[in-house]
Amino acid sequence: MAAQLPEPQPLADLIKALRALPGVGVRTARRMAYHLLQQDPQGARQLSQAIENALQSLVHCEQCNSFSQTQVCAVCADTSRDPGLLCVVESVSDLNTIEATHHYSGLYYVLMGRIAPLEGQGAQEINTRKFLERVSDARLREVILATSFTAEGETTAHYLGELLRSKGIPVSRLARGVPAGSELEYIDAATVAWAMAERKPA
Amino acid sequence: MAAQLPEPQPLADLIKALRALPGVGVRTARRMAYHLLQQDPQGARQLSQAIENALQSLVHCEQCNSFSQTQVCAVCADTSRDPGLLCVVESVSDLNTIEATHHYSGLYYVLMGRIAPLEGQGAQEINTRKFLERVSDARLREVILATSFTAEGETTAHYLGELLRSKGIPVSRLARGVPAGSELEYIDAATVAWAMAERKPA
Repeated sequence: MAAQLPEPQPLADLIKALRALPGVGVRTARRMAYHLLQQDPQGARQLSQAIENALQSLVHCEQCNSFSQTQVCAVCADTSRDPGLLCVVESVSDLNTIEATHHYSGLYYVLMGRIAPLEGQGAQEINTRKFLERVSDARLREVILATSFTAEGETTAHYLGELLRSKGIPVSRLARGVPAGSELEYIDAATVAWAMAERKPA
Repeated sequence: MAAQLPEPQPLADLIKALRALPGVGVRTARRMAYHLLQQDPQGARQLSQAIENALQSLVHCEQCNSFSQTQVCAVCADTSRDPGLLCVVESVSDLNTIEATHHYSGLYYVLMGRIAPLEGQGAQEINTRKFLERVSDARLREVILATSFTAEGETTAHYLGELLRSKGIPVSRLARGVPAGSELEYIDAATVAWAMAERKPA
């Protein structure tokens, strides 16, 4: 209903542009637009400039494909990390999640995408050439596929796994099973079935 | 945890700037930043420009104080509206809510703020001078206070009501009571008490 109201064009444009943000529908976008203009014009200006600045000054790290201000990012340039391990993730968020465990000291490759056939996104979503170049590093002992355990993540892992095996590169996948701290009663059947099939000697 | 990660400065700045949006914490801001840079750089550029454009080209309507591209906004310039009725709302969102009822054909005044003593926001949050100028319109038969029924909205309504009564301007407040379509069992006691106290002949 509210969408039918005549709004000044720059306001309508701003509401439309805010919908580029993930999870932001027209109602939230309208609330955000009013907030920025009414309560926080200074924050709005900073946001506009921060977007512009990020677009202009960030590049993809030539090794791991993550965002970086320099040709090689801080993680890839860190010589204390093990160059024999490469963990492949879908996004920088996933990289952050693994870093937060403090249990991984190898390097990363950020796909910046995933194969999602149901959404019409095939292997071209991933820069396969850049990935193959990265895994041609002779120091690599193992590539760990840490894409999500969704249909898309599994498809992507399968595709990359085939590719790596055909090159004779040792490849692994994150373990599947019951999450830490969870009560079995509340875990879905597929997860329990996995955990059962991949049970380990206690 | 993830906040400790070294992020390129322009990315960290963008994440910080996105937090100016209402309801956006650091995790959501990070997800938004990655999405904009990774999936939708074109949308990001449009957003940056839309913010800049809105900041530059929108002014406050000199009559109702709402956002407008022109000195007098489309609603105030609409001669089919009743100039004898003035509905006072806190924000443009509230104006939209009332417009969506299709049961009001008077004019509006948008406070663009509210009195919130608990947040240290007093009467200076409202441009009282502009408001008094607006209500000095001799054609006015009634001013309807449609601020929210929260502590802040009630305080604001009380303040404006006193002001208007001291000028001899007839003033009303939206009716309080049980919402349409609701079962009495689930309505809070304060609302039912209001509805009881302000009951009407059936």
